[in-house]
Amino acid sequence: MRIAVSLAYEGGAYCGWQIQSHSPSVQEQVEKALSRVANHPVQVVCAGRTDTGVHASHQIIHFDTDAVRPMHAWVKGANTYLPKDINLNWAVPVSDEFHARFSALSRRYRYIIYNGPMRLGLWHQQMTYCYQGLDEKKMQEAAQYWLGEHDFSSFRASGCQSNTPMRRIDAFTVQRQGSTVFFDVEANAFLHHMIRNFAGVLMEIGRGNKAVAWANEVLESRDRRVAGVTAPANGLYFVNVTYPDIFQLPKARVEPLVLMC
Amino acid sequence: MRIAVSLAYEGGAYCGWQIQSHSPSVQEQVEKALSRVANHPVQVVCAGRTDTGVHASHQIIHFDTDAVRPMHAWVKGANTYLPKDINLNWAVPVSDEFHARFSALSRRYRYIIYNGPMRLGLWHQQMTYCYQGLDEKKMQEAAQYWLGEHDFSSFRASGCQSNTPMRRIDAFTVQRQGSTVFFDVEANAFLHHMIRNFAGVLMEIGRGNKAVAWANEVLESRDRRVAGVTAPANGLYFVNVTYPDIFQLPKARVEPLVLMC
Repeated sequence: MRIAVSLAYEGGAYCGWQIQSHSPSVQEQVEKALSRVANHPVQVVCAGRTDTGVHASHQIIHFDTDAVRPMHAWVKGANTYLPKDINLNWAVPVSDEFHARFSALSRRYRYIIYNGPMRLGLWHQQMTYCYQGLDEKKMQEAAQYWLGEHDFSSFRASGCQSNTPMRRIDAFTVQRQGSTVFFDVEANAFLHHMIRNFAGVLMEIGRGNKAVAWANEVLESRDRRVAGVTAPANGLYFVNVTYPDIFQLPKARVEPLVLMC
Repeated sequence: MRIAVSLAYEGGAYCGWQIQSHSPSVQEQVEKALSRVANHPVQVVCAGRTDTGVHASHQIIHFDTDAVRPMHAWVKGANTYLPKDINLNWAVPVSDEFHARFSALSRRYRYIIYNGPMRLGLWHQQMTYCYQGLDEKKMQEAAQYWLGEHDFSSFRASGCQSNTPMRRIDAFTVQRQGSTVFFDVEANAFLHHMIRNFAGVLMEIGRGNKAVAWANEVLESRDRRVAGVTAPANGLYFVNVTYPDIFQLPKARVEPLVLMC
């Protein structure tokens, strides 16, 4: 039996999604917890691997099991065994054709920047900080150059293992809420560090250090050295994955949460 | 020369405001950082001591110094030396009559509860979790019994060092934003654990386990054992202090911050 699961995590304490021998990973924690519920070793496959320090509100995984449990027992059981910074949102049975990674049509990330006069002690792990005033309208304009299918070599980390630098960006919106500037980007898939490199370029344009058209120059150069700084991981959230309707997965639950700073 | 400072912190890593021999405190970190800027040992006095794990967006302190520095140098210097989870918001010169604790007219706290079907891995350190549906209108109604001056013995921790259980509540509002229920309470001062005990009673009423009038019964009993559970510290934020206008302190900056869960 194949089960699909939505989970969320605060990434600050982990070396990222994938199991590494030298430090704790989200995958390791999730497999441990599900194995205890299943009473046999469980291996999971995720929709999109996240880097060290990157968060997720809606990561999708699947796993196979012979254990017969009600779906809520998988969720409640795993949440009992998981550390406080990871939780399952839901679990549903899926057909054997479903694959968390290969069935995914698109992924969506959010990147959050706190743009105030002082760095924040509160939420320091939840947002990137930029003290120079950001012009979110210029950032929005710049990001539109990246829509559609392109060779994103300029935004790709040197260690990226993808066979191709081609990706298709379906949506890119930059917004401001008070002192917070955030962007949402949806693509068929992402290259390694692609969003943090987008963030680095957009912040340079937002600060006024570069013109809006620089976003296009960087893209067309196909040269990583042109794009400059990779923005920090702490502002980055994996927030959605879409699959063909035939799999009937529940929707992501992304709702605004009002806190204060 | 006397200087007043506004600071913010995420309390998760600290035993609270006050210096303790056995574990790290916010006060210790702030005194260390200011001492480095001043180039002499600095001792600070705060408006309201917070407990282990309690956060602050706008705590006020004062200290005395012979060192002559521009105000922004105190802030920028201290922020360089402070750990990531603490920051100064501003510093201003004040008269010798100003005292962060004794001059304060009132304090305000916010308490945030995540009221969704699953505990959150994201923001687990920033909000208390309650899975049973909370009726925020009943909670609001219940809290109105506490307005004005009362003997708050029922909401006072056994270790509370105050000479009197009398306190004056000036405002108490409970609101819901999506899956988040939060309340703001302003008083001349608070007893030890008073707000977390308010939260414990309000959650019992919000869940429907107790009637609205129970809030008044607890108050009138003047017996700590009647109130029940002290709610967790991670949802509690110290957000404002008011002083007489004559001291001309800058206002607190409390703005909504939109995140998602």
